[in-house]
Amino acid sequence: MKARIHVYLKPGVLDPQGQAVSNSLNHLGFDEVTGVRQGKLIEIDLNTADAEEAQQRVSEMCDKLLANPVIENYDIELSA
Amino acid sequence: MKARIHVYLKPGVLDPQGQAVSNSLNHLGFDEVTGVRQGKLIEIDLNTADAEEAQQRVSEMCDKLLANPVIENYDIELSA
Repeated sequence: MKARIHVYLKPGVLDPQGQAVSNSLNHLGFDEVTGVRQGKLIEIDLNTADAEEAQQRVSEMCDKLLANPVIENYDIELSA
Repeated sequence: MKARIHVYLKPGVLDPQGQAVSNSLNHLGFDEVTGVRQGKLIEIDLNTADAEEAQQRVSEMCDKLLANPVIENYDIELSA
């Protein structure tokens, strides 16, 4: 099965990369843009069929490697 | 309204970052991981209420700045 993970900065954590993208968009004439936050999208192929186990293992991967729990949140979507 | 954009490498394009994450996960004991692809997640706040116009403008932003159309695909989700 496949897991799609979104990793994004917690609210309140400064996001200079998003700020830079926001400024660039404004400079390009996209005046309707008022804010940008940038995160990571991680897609994992898993050699397992048990959704409950997969959810638990992927959470563990996020805590250990994929996200920095001090400044980032994540959510996980599983699909067959 | 808000736009959430996923930018990911086209199939067939080499993803060394994803490969590195995949190797690290295997080393940490997550043997069920068979492949990883890493992309970008971009969240934009828009000062507009017209969903159709927003969709069109955000596509333009992706083509001009946020994605590299030679090697990347993107999809856009809008929410109020």
